[in-house]
Amino acid sequence: MIQNEQETEISTLGEFGLIDRLTKDIKLVNESSVKGVGDDCAVLRYGEKETLVTTDLLLEGIHFDLTYTPLKHLGYKVAVVNFSDVYAMNGIPRQLTVSLGVSKRFTVEHIDALYSGIRLACEIYGVDLVGGDTSASVTGLIISATCIGEAEKGKVVYRNGAKDTDLICVSGDLGSAYMGLQLLERERSVSKDSQEEFHPAFEGREYLLERQLKPEARRDVVEALAKAGVKPTSMIDVSDGLSSELMHICKQSNTGCRIYEGRIPIDYQTAIMAEEFNMNLVTAALNGGEDYELLFTVPLTDHEKVAAMEGVKIIGRITKPELGMYMETRDGAELQLRAQGWQAFEQEED
Amino acid sequence: MIQNEQETEISTLGEFGLIDRLTKDIKLVNESSVKGVGDDCAVLRYGEKETLVTTDLLLEGIHFDLTYTPLKHLGYKVAVVNFSDVYAMNGIPRQLTVSLGVSKRFTVEHIDALYSGIRLACEIYGVDLVGGDTSASVTGLIISATCIGEAEKGKVVYRNGAKDTDLICVSGDLGSAYMGLQLLERERSVSKDSQEEFHPAFEGREYLLERQLKPEARRDVVEALAKAGVKPTSMIDVSDGLSSELMHICKQSNTGCRIYEGRIPIDYQTAIMAEEFNMNLVTAALNGGEDYELLFTVPLTDHEKVAAMEGVKIIGRITKPELGMYMETRDGAELQLRAQGWQAFEQEED
Repeated sequence: MIQNEQETEISTLGEFGLIDRLTKDIKLVNESSVKGVGDDCAVLRYGEKETLVTTDLLLEGIHFDLTYTPLKHLGYKVAVVNFSDVYAMNGIPRQLTVSLGVSKRFTVEHIDALYSGIRLACEIYGVDLVGGDTSASVTGLIISATCIGEAEKGKVVYRNGAKDTDLICVSGDLGSAYMGLQLLERERSVSKDSQEEFHPAFEGREYLLERQLKPEARRDVVEALAKAGVKPTSMIDVSDGLSSELMHICKQSNTGCRIYEGRIPIDYQTAIMAEEFNMNLVTAALNGGEDYELLFTVPLTDHEKVAAMEGVKIIGRITKPELGMYMETRDGAELQLRAQGWQAFEQEED
Repeated sequence: MIQNEQETEISTLGEFGLIDRLTKDIKLVNESSVKGVGDDCAVLRYGEKETLVTTDLLLEGIHFDLTYTPLKHLGYKVAVVNFSDVYAMNGIPRQLTVSLGVSKRFTVEHIDALYSGIRLACEIYGVDLVGGDTSASVTGLIISATCIGEAEKGKVVYRNGAKDTDLICVSGDLGSAYMGLQLLERERSVSKDSQEEFHPAFEGREYLLERQLKPEARRDVVEALAKAGVKPTSMIDVSDGLSSELMHICKQSNTGCRIYEGRIPIDYQTAIMAEEFNMNLVTAALNGGEDYELLFTVPLTDHEKVAAMEGVKIIGRITKPELGMYMETRDGAELQLRAQGWQAFEQEED
């Protein structure tokens, strides 16, 4: 992290000074946001709506690497990832709280950059930043975010409503964020070896990088579903990978599923990179994660409606539980789906 | 941290296994908790109430030291500290989310212990644990908690409502949690020098240790205020120290204040320890922090009502802003109050 002369040590501001600086010109836009930062709690007012709450903890060295992640992008992503969880319930994100643990390595300008990303995401998605907590850290950057959202009564979509014969749909494309990460990791090792500053050339790969560094939440899909009069029977966002998310839906709905390799949406840049890296493209799409696309199921009767939706693909169907969870490959073979999950506990402590 | 043969490596469970284990027998008790853990979001349903949200991030090495903090106590404290913030708004805590970052040093039994404290606090205070996030960490334990609460419309008490001539009241006693911390820190250094395990003798000091390790939130005070028909004009919980909290109220209410040294409630164990440590007792009470008592202001007309409340002391009054913020000492001198705030950014990164 480059420190230049214009930068200010956080200690010169102190906690309250830093909070004042970060929050002084925040404007609340939602009627339900009665009180934002500046008190013990944020105060929200909901009428007859359902209130949604989601929270995420992001740790430097585990969830992000600041060598190749600009702080503004990181802030944007932290917010969007939480919004995505609210959309995945068929809700609308309304308020966000962000807590930071910040080590001495970071200056006020760094935190400004992080916050500018958070606030940009809030602005774009119409969410109010209503509170948080800022603290010193002995070991790098720690970000905890909580999002509150709302949904009309009876409109919330859970993971447990999928039924036999339902269609399985997914938005956008899968595996591109993972490929973006592979690309960044490779460039970083090259950069490390050369002892030079990190200025890799990424021409023609912008889409992959954007998917990794600046993902978007699929508000448009939730809005399109509402417009088409479709209420999914189950829904989840793809954060750990398609395979893992499908297992959540099937386990909680007590069903099986069958998806088709040939129907999994994959961007051509993802395919090119997979070849370049000599990686299995389907593995990247199934287990890559961080796509923040929406995976959902709808009754067969909604087939025409979802087939007509832009950016949504039908990739398979829900089956009886005893049929298990399978993917049919392009050559007609059956592949049992496995949860990749998260194995980060394997890594070493410093 | 002692590891014995019965303990299980977290990696043997994996993320979903750990979450299942931690959450499998949670029962929701509040009607407003529609959906707890197990989906992208918790779902809450509020009628015509105001919804309160508060969040805290606690980091090992900054906010707690596991040498002398039992994990169960730590879990209890994390929860209670958040409840305290909701009470400080004159609200009732209803739901809690907890996110953990856990390094390889911790076993499943450690996390069980932490959660048992969180769940005990939730049980005692009638709060539902409705979600969270669990992740690996490269550097010790990280805990982020968010509490959602409710308040009747119009009953929320902010920091900015104090008026000239209002009475300043505080519950319980101050400085004892800080003295408990001093005691623990001293015993730890003794223990470090002796190279033996940490088994200090704390006879007669139990109150101080309990205040530091297992604080309670003042639900009883909020209930007593409601019963007496008193709505404070401003309120805050004492987490950073009386002086700092008074400055928040005065700054946001645009007032001054005058408190009286002789009226600040101090427990005799705190006084004895201050003498033993050769520390200024009033400094401990003013700036010690972590008391989690309620500091609030009421109109003069409520004098009789608050004077009759058990465990509440009137320590001074609100003044015009131009009169500044002062404490009158026992010998009649005037001492200007200063914010201590949080200077932890000064410390070194590893």
